[in-house]
Amino acid sequence: MELLDAFKWRYATKKFDPTKKVDQALVDKIVEAAWIAPTSSGLQPFEVLVISNQELKNKIVPIAYDQQIVADCSHLLVFAAWDNYTAERIDNIYAHTTTEREQPSDRYRAYTDRLKEMYLNQSAEANLAHTARQAYIAFGFAIAEAASLQVDSTPMEGFIGEELDQLLKLNEKGLKSVTILPIGYRDEVNDWLVNLKKVRHPKTEFLTIID
Amino acid sequence: MELLDAFKWRYATKKFDPTKKVDQALVDKIVEAAWIAPTSSGLQPFEVLVISNQELKNKIVPIAYDQQIVADCSHLLVFAAWDNYTAERIDNIYAHTTTEREQPSDRYRAYTDRLKEMYLNQSAEANLAHTARQAYIAFGFAIAEAASLQVDSTPMEGFIGEELDQLLKLNEKGLKSVTILPIGYRDEVNDWLVNLKKVRHPKTEFLTIID
Repeated sequence: MELLDAFKWRYATKKFDPTKKVDQALVDKIVEAAWIAPTSSGLQPFEVLVISNQELKNKIVPIAYDQQIVADCSHLLVFAAWDNYTAERIDNIYAHTTTEREQPSDRYRAYTDRLKEMYLNQSAEANLAHTARQAYIAFGFAIAEAASLQVDSTPMEGFIGEELDQLLKLNEKGLKSVTILPIGYRDEVNDWLVNLKKVRHPKTEFLTIID
Repeated sequence: MELLDAFKWRYATKKFDPTKKVDQALVDKIVEAAWIAPTSSGLQPFEVLVISNQELKNKIVPIAYDQQIVADCSHLLVFAAWDNYTAERIDNIYAHTTTEREQPSDRYRAYTDRLKEMYLNQSAEANLAHTARQAYIAFGFAIAEAASLQVDSTPMEGFIGEELDQLLKLNEKGLKSVTILPIGYRDEVNDWLVNLKKVRHPKTEFLTIID
């Protein structure tokens, strides 16, 4: 299947079949897609949590405005962005890069100095707006990968971030949950959305071509 | 090629071959991927501009800190997010949805009332943070689609937003450029990044599994 056909096949699943679990090999691929996604300056300013523990998923249901898909899904991916940039975080990323590339440890010093100059002079709020955007590229990659594997997923922002952060102890790690992605297999009979036409804004309004 | 292999093949191209143009059919598919991407409440709060006009690309080079890839790429995609949510924009989207689905025009009234209640009581800045995130999902989809077609692309935030908005008259349309994506074909001989190892943060630090 061409990727575009997978994109047309996918939809925001509203009812998962709780008896169907996604194979670990496929979960690994979806996580790998999020991991390999590009980010600004390669900083990868977010982490991913993969939750299949039923008790924990059940606890997240009320935090997600009682949406049952959080309990019924096979695995719940939580995208948690860095709550801020710090010198240590930036140095840590580039220390790893130079090690992996067998480069001198100061190879990117001038570059990381510029990054610090920029980010450490911005508010935590402005930096979170930026780290969250990077997480959303990876979120897109994970949704794309799931679709390509014919695994259903539901992009979801409908949850109380502060409560989820507290439950998952994300604050202690300097993270904030920004979006979540239940994955699993659709319950075709009971999903009200599955047979509704996928609608997008007309291309005439969406797209401007300048040749 | 599996999608994950395409993700490993792709990299942020630093030098395009200016003589190689991307076929229109492939450009259309990349745009289609951005268009079909999921967004919060289906609002699609962004537009895409596709620029192949050489004169205009040249004008954008200084706005993009003199990065020559903007001139050398085949097509430049600009992702421009809504600068704010408005009742009119929300109604416009759902009017189209009900028409396409042949539903009563007030089918989603209660839902759109809740959306307005939420977004119209937030600052334009908070709403832009949200519309930009949606644009980044589509940005991810476009990068993924390009990779699947073996078209090179460079996710780029390095440009002066206000100047690009002015040049492209985005303000008049209530839009703000949030990220850009040059696409084309790599100049393998002259690209300093093409042969460097792709490095990501160790999975032990990136990933938390809760079984």
